[in-house]
Amino acid sequence: MQKLDKLYEGKAKKLYATDDPEVLWVEYMNQATAGNGAKKAQIEGKGSLNNRITSVVFDLLKARGVDSHFMQRLSDTEQLVQKMDMYPLEIIMRNTAAGSFAKRYGVEEGTKLARPILEFCYKSDDLGDPFINDDGIVALGLASQEELDEISRQARAVNDALLDIFAKIDVQLVDFKIEEGRNAQGAILLADEITPDTCRLWDLKDGSGRIEHLDKDLFRRDLGNIIPAYEEILSRLEQLAEDEGVERS
Amino acid sequence: MQKLDKLYEGKAKKLYATDDPEVLWVEYMNQATAGNGAKKAQIEGKGSLNNRITSVVFDLLKARGVDSHFMQRLSDTEQLVQKMDMYPLEIIMRNTAAGSFAKRYGVEEGTKLARPILEFCYKSDDLGDPFINDDGIVALGLASQEELDEISRQARAVNDALLDIFAKIDVQLVDFKIEEGRNAQGAILLADEITPDTCRLWDLKDGSGRIEHLDKDLFRRDLGNIIPAYEEILSRLEQLAEDEGVERS
Repeated sequence: MQKLDKLYEGKAKKLYATDDPEVLWVEYMNQATAGNGAKKAQIEGKGSLNNRITSVVFDLLKARGVDSHFMQRLSDTEQLVQKMDMYPLEIIMRNTAAGSFAKRYGVEEGTKLARPILEFCYKSDDLGDPFINDDGIVALGLASQEELDEISRQARAVNDALLDIFAKIDVQLVDFKIEEGRNAQGAILLADEITPDTCRLWDLKDGSGRIEHLDKDLFRRDLGNIIPAYEEILSRLEQLAEDEGVERS
Repeated sequence: MQKLDKLYEGKAKKLYATDDPEVLWVEYMNQATAGNGAKKAQIEGKGSLNNRITSVVFDLLKARGVDSHFMQRLSDTEQLVQKMDMYPLEIIMRNTAAGSFAKRYGVEEGTKLARPILEFCYKSDDLGDPFINDDGIVALGLASQEELDEISRQARAVNDALLDIFAKIDVQLVDFKIEEGRNAQGAILLADEITPDTCRLWDLKDGSGRIEHLDKDLFRRDLGNIIPAYEEILSRLEQLAEDEGVERS
């Protein structure tokens, strides 16, 4: 597999073409951003940790029957993925009130939700990624009703599998953001990344009831260095994959 | 029927108890507000027009099989309605992009939507009536899934009936807001009001393609006096009810 031209540079990743038109070469960067890019920093080691975390998460998901675009980890900071035609949607699943949800509805952060909440935002930097509902998505042509039903089904299946994975490593999965797309064969698949950048993860090991963040809120809210937290998540996930005998890509 | 204590004073209506615990006495006020009460004015004649408009709309809806809390118009500014246990929801149906929808998603005002869009906002002055989706409504306990399904079904039925009514009087029904509640028997019913305060209504008679507002946007956007526009809507609706031989409450 040969790495060719850079196709896209996002906030945390660079995407390159390869000599296979159906495969992309992803490079994880050390950049951390928050507030739609308003806050920005270079954090040594973050790219490598996220590349390794999302790789083991995708392997753990695959072992639970949840497929994704992920093909193979190449190095500390690089991986191969299926080239996807992405939906312009941030797909958010919430199990516990936090962040924008807690603020928007005046619910105390940490409140367990009566059922998992699926939310969509329309990915648009210009518009500030506005919240959108199913009718809006279909009316604006961001996805058809059939595609949206499948995306929603997959989002709930990803949540079920991630709840199981994180419970096994004593971490509370508060909420997370995923993205979905269609591959060259037209299959709708989980894409992008699943890392402490895109999940709220609270440590349950402490047992004090105090919220201990193992995620990007450490950076967003200036609560401390993210690296030890991300290392802790990676180490527990690697141990789980080993314990479960999960096949590594 | 006897008018008793005032139970509630909102932005545009006062509600009074009656000697029947299942019936409320509503008085329409001349107050106009916009921007969640940030803009406010007294407009002579508005209360009477809205009381008469919503009465004829509810009668026209009833003739189309859509029930509501409306019982009887008593005077120019007063009517009797069934006492309802209201859901804390603004229920919005959109046929054409306008207002907050157009702004939120960067869609030009006046763009016909591929299908009617149903949106909910959580009624809370403190929170600024935030947009909420079905999962959020159920998780926060604002309505059960079964209630929400029925509310949604009714909202779409109200939209179908109103589209028919307004098309017959050469008015484009751009969008509208309704509220729903349960009566003493537990039946879920359309409530509140349907007036140019709660609907965006564009005149089609002109034929120039220029948007001519017959609704509260005249006040919100300082485009002119609302009274002649509201009088025009009332007059066309009264004529339609007469033409159709609709029974008046």
